[in-house]
Amino acid sequence: MTTGTARRRRSDGERSRSVILHTAARLATVEGLDGLTIGRLAAETGMSKSGLFAHFGSKEELQLATIATAEEIYEEEVLRPALQEEGRARVEALCERFLSHVHRKVFPGGCFFASAAAELDTRPGPVRDRVATDHREWLELIEDSVRTAQEHGELDRSVEPAQLTFELNALLAEANGIFLLTGDARALDMARRGIADRLERAAA
Amino acid sequence: MTTGTARRRRSDGERSRSVILHTAARLATVEGLDGLTIGRLAAETGMSKSGLFAHFGSKEELQLATIATAEEIYEEEVLRPALQEEGRARVEALCERFLSHVHRKVFPGGCFFASAAAELDTRPGPVRDRVATDHREWLELIEDSVRTAQEHGELDRSVEPAQLTFELNALLAEANGIFLLTGDARALDMARRGIADRLERAAA
Repeated sequence: MTTGTARRRRSDGERSRSVILHTAARLATVEGLDGLTIGRLAAETGMSKSGLFAHFGSKEELQLATIATAEEIYEEEVLRPALQEEGRARVEALCERFLSHVHRKVFPGGCFFASAAAELDTRPGPVRDRVATDHREWLELIEDSVRTAQEHGELDRSVEPAQLTFELNALLAEANGIFLLTGDARALDMARRGIADRLERAAA
Repeated sequence: MTTGTARRRRSDGERSRSVILHTAARLATVEGLDGLTIGRLAAETGMSKSGLFAHFGSKEELQLATIATAEEIYEEEVLRPALQEEGRARVEALCERFLSHVHRKVFPGGCFFASAAAELDTRPGPVRDRVATDHREWLELIEDSVRTAQEHGELDRSVEPAQLTFELNALLAEANGIFLLTGDARALDMARRGIADRLERAAA
């Protein structure tokens, strides 16, 4: 085997791995992380079961790799655009990008992490830990942005960052849940109104 | 068979049906409504599989009967105590009874309906419809209480009842989700603070 062939083979393998994991990340928001079976993924990707087995040693490995892919998608769709802003504008952009990615159905079952958290909340283990860490980091990102906004004088210093973050994230999560359950985009607008109102009050 | 024996048999059957369904309602918040299998319920209740088959004709029938039982439990634990109040006090009691039933782990996987909604949001059918109806009725109950509070002059008439209800329920749902994921009861207190603050502002 020449070096070129080896490289091409590895690269083909990486591409098919990426196709599998993007399919898995979308599918997991509908069928659950526990619903990710080799058979289901084979049907969705058109690949052979034996080909899929070669990529993932265990269900847990597949689930963790799927979460890593969902993190990349979230980074691209929500975090990166919002991180171009600072302080209060960053808080607003994080909220708006979140709502937009729900509305655009980046994941067909809404926020990947909300879906996974609801599925795994009572099932301890490394998969749940990873989702809990992602969730904590998301809240820390909002909280840090609130603190910066306070340092910039954009939000009142009497506001407790963790409390404000809890309230903002509650509105985001509820919008995600209701939009999925009812398909009614007014839930997203209610969250927008609630967030604008809450930030306005925190700016006083 | 004497009438007495027939009555006792029916009553034994009803009792065991009730035991099965209470077990199923608790189990569904951990394993999902889709995780309710005859085998799993037999293991949990110590009944025979054939005995369980006699009670439920189909998985969908079992799921709908489980939801009906969860509704009864919710009625007892959350609705009935709160409905003794009126207007703003009823809004507060609905929120507090909800948080209390989460804290007391009436269902081990937290709010039954939040759990079911997260599982079923992308799966159309009668089971999802029933959960969506329960959710709508819960929101209508809060919304009606907000309207009564406005009529009583306890909340400002400029407040939009659906918007306020969305915001209050967002805090409840988030507290439920975070408490389940982290086991940290401070999430329940953050919801309490957010609700008290929101109602105080709506009373202005």
